[in-house]
Amino acid sequence: MNYRMIAYTIGRILIIVAAAMMIPLVLSLFFDEGIASAYLIPILLSLAIGAAVSIKPPENKSMFVREGMVIVGLSWIIISIIGGMPFFISRQIPNAVDCFFETVSGFTTTGSTILSDVESMSKSLLFWRSFTHWLGGMGVLVFAMAIFSSKDTRATYMMKAEMPGPVVGKLTSKWQFSARILYIIYVALTVLEIVFLIFGGMPVFDSIVHTFGTAGTGGFGIKNTSIAYYNSAYIDYVIGIFMVLFGLNFNIYFLLLMRKFANLKHEDEMKWYIGIVLLASVVIAFNIMPLYHTFAKSFRYSFFQVSSIMTTTGYATADYCTWPMLSQVILVLLMIIGACAGSTGGGIKVIRFIILLKVAKRAVRKAASPRSVFSVNTAGKTVEWEILNGVLAYFVIYIIFMGVSILLVSLDNKDLATTVTSVIATMNNIGPGLGEIGPTGNFADFSILSKLVMSIDMLVGRLEFYPILILFSPYVWKKS
Amino acid sequence: MNYRMIAYTIGRILIIVAAAMMIPLVLSLFFDEGIASAYLIPILLSLAIGAAVSIKPPENKSMFVREGMVIVGLSWIIISIIGGMPFFISRQIPNAVDCFFETVSGFTTTGSTILSDVESMSKSLLFWRSFTHWLGGMGVLVFAMAIFSSKDTRATYMMKAEMPGPVVGKLTSKWQFSARILYIIYVALTVLEIVFLIFGGMPVFDSIVHTFGTAGTGGFGIKNTSIAYYNSAYIDYVIGIFMVLFGLNFNIYFLLLMRKFANLKHEDEMKWYIGIVLLASVVIAFNIMPLYHTFAKSFRYSFFQVSSIMTTTGYATADYCTWPMLSQVILVLLMIIGACAGSTGGGIKVIRFIILLKVAKRAVRKAASPRSVFSVNTAGKTVEWEILNGVLAYFVIYIIFMGVSILLVSLDNKDLATTVTSVIATMNNIGPGLGEIGPTGNFADFSILSKLVMSIDMLVGRLEFYPILILFSPYVWKKS
Repeated sequence: MNYRMIAYTIGRILIIVAAAMMIPLVLSLFFDEGIASAYLIPILLSLAIGAAVSIKPPENKSMFVREGMVIVGLSWIIISIIGGMPFFISRQIPNAVDCFFETVSGFTTTGSTILSDVESMSKSLLFWRSFTHWLGGMGVLVFAMAIFSSKDTRATYMMKAEMPGPVVGKLTSKWQFSARILYIIYVALTVLEIVFLIFGGMPVFDSIVHTFGTAGTGGFGIKNTSIAYYNSAYIDYVIGIFMVLFGLNFNIYFLLLMRKFANLKHEDEMKWYIGIVLLASVVIAFNIMPLYHTFAKSFRYSFFQVSSIMTTTGYATADYCTWPMLSQVILVLLMIIGACAGSTGGGIKVIRFIILLKVAKRAVRKAASPRSVFSVNTAGKTVEWEILNGVLAYFVIYIIFMGVSILLVSLDNKDLATTVTSVIATMNNIGPGLGEIGPTGNFADFSILSKLVMSIDMLVGRLEFYPILILFSPYVWKKS
Repeated sequence: MNYRMIAYTIGRILIIVAAAMMIPLVLSLFFDEGIASAYLIPILLSLAIGAAVSIKPPENKSMFVREGMVIVGLSWIIISIIGGMPFFISRQIPNAVDCFFETVSGFTTTGSTILSDVESMSKSLLFWRSFTHWLGGMGVLVFAMAIFSSKDTRATYMMKAEMPGPVVGKLTSKWQFSARILYIIYVALTVLEIVFLIFGGMPVFDSIVHTFGTAGTGGFGIKNTSIAYYNSAYIDYVIGIFMVLFGLNFNIYFLLLMRKFANLKHEDEMKWYIGIVLLASVVIAFNIMPLYHTFAKSFRYSFFQVSSIMTTTGYATADYCTWPMLSQVILVLLMIIGACAGSTGGGIKVIRFIILLKVAKRAVRKAASPRSVFSVNTAGKTVEWEILNGVLAYFVIYIIFMGVSILLVSLDNKDLATTVTSVIATMNNIGPGLGEIGPTGNFADFSILSKLVMSIDMLVGRLEFYPILILFSPYVWKKS
């Protein structure tokens, strides 16, 4: 294990975080909020530590997957601690564990909050909170890669550890170039949404902050009633559609940019993803018609909630806890499925479910005809056994982690719906769940243990388990 | 597909069922209940059909896995329809779907009931209801094999389709001989439990009926308050311990009979199973201490409920729905894990979880060191990839089936705990769940659709999916 290289890279990431925190600092001075020190302390701290460990590049720059994983796992924990300091120092979130929870929720683009009255917070803190979504969205580290002109192959390892989904796909042969293209697409979509929202009459500050939450598929709002506050069908549809767009595999945009339209035909995941969103929206729209009278109105609410939950964003325009059980169950299933691989969304990812469904189909055929050979195909290609086993192992780890987390959270003795969906909502980086933590509730009332468990769940969910699990695996720390 | 052979075998199974139904018929005449026709009609019906299709053995006796699966799948459905007739004809369960549900629940050893007042039923019907547990316990078909002296290899295929778990293990080279040994063990344990219960002061009829429910890990009782009615620590512990014994892999008894004590050391599954029962009992005992004051009393209730749920029996001595959430969550997790492979119990089975845990461990190591080779071992042997994939595919099918079932049952618009645990409790062949279907509730209030969905869930759970799924697979019915 190349410890020097790990420290060096984390140091450079700290400098990026310090730079990012300058923006809310400037905002805070501009609004004259009197909490400049809440930003200055963590900025100076991370600059000092960052500079100390990264001033001299290490001689041995060799890095393997193991190092990449450890860097990703450790740095997400460290930036969540530093990123939470402004809330703590300003005393606007007095409890340190709450600050950590809120910041992990921000960077992992979960959007679960411990705040019961978000409107009482300083504007610059609300900006920083949503900005963590945007930064976390495509991975702070890939971000770092794209900015620092590094020619190392190490980017490969880190991107692999951080990009969600089993089929990232090499966009181009140069990873660094890929990262830049991804960011251009990301920034372009962000600007587009801000413009659309301002056009719809949303204040500029609100438009920027809500776009951060959409782009990162995070879901932190700045109103106690989330998007329902604006009560506008136009805004609901703009945010609803942009959530779907940010939940798509970014390869799609790359193919569009390169005018490779023919390749889109093979994008099974995109077809399933859009199909599920539409089907679920229509079924729920009919199911909730008695509550909203017209189909147009019930479809508006059902599409927004489906889009928000499936993309794991977590914005709300209606309290789905009051909907019939069928709608609630559909939403819980969408929570688990999640968005596309290679997007900013969380969850198990649509492509994994497609592969799992095919594995199940193959197993039934195989049971009937043990000697025949069947392969699992997706996007016109046969899925290799090693990838197949990776997907299955991922699924197993996911279920085990979920079981253990639910067990620990159940110590809080809340009702079953709250206990179970609090873990589902955090592990899949969604935000709200059912019961006490529905769209109108929050996570303030959980014990410290539960908040820490859920913080870990958010991290493992966002980083797809391995980078965090590896930190606790004695095998990795053994001298080799 | 050898249709003649399928019809022939199912015909012989129908004759067995007719013979089994003679016992409650005699009981009914003895108690002078006036419902003899309720038994005579299905007995004559199944004798007629059975004789018609099996009077002449088919010339082509060749059978493969496919035929074995189809026979198992179809015959469980047919015997559930015929076995439900006595309830319907006697008008003691007036709804045909309820009769089917109750009988599927009996044969699959689930123990979920639609009866709200079980004590008002005729004694012979209560006997028949519990007798279906005992018959279903080790598989009506293997039972048939053991009685009919058949020298065909087809027994192999059917036993494979019906015996639970991935590692049945050939007890001896002759399957038919194996089936007999299993039945000798099964009968011996049954007699032993009846004697123990009578010794404890339970009436003879009650002892026999409750032993049927224990042996099949079914759980149908004859008192509205289940085993709590007897209010005896001795009876609680006898039934509690026998539930654990019937949840063990029957290979263990075979090894004990053969005095191969050294081989027991490799029985990972037995160690985990007993370990989980004890650990869960102790944790829950401490968790519920405030309700029962002394540790002795709370351990008595916690051990019984853990044993009942983990072995998927479903007897109750306490209403665990009033217990703290930690205890409830532990019980739900035990529901999903289930008993040992090669036992009469349901659930995913302990051995599958051991293998899944090892797959997860291997995946984490592999993520850190992609080029290394790691194998998964159990019972001192490396698990082959094909078995590993079988276990993983099983897990996937299990989760998919559960999701779809929950979706359909949610149409009844019951609370989340009831909706979710009704599917878990039926698919794992347990019986009671949480909420409305807790130990003091029943399944009467569900819609016809939900009852049919749960009936299928009980069947796929008991037969481990493939025999039922294959009935619906167009691939199997294609001419080859």
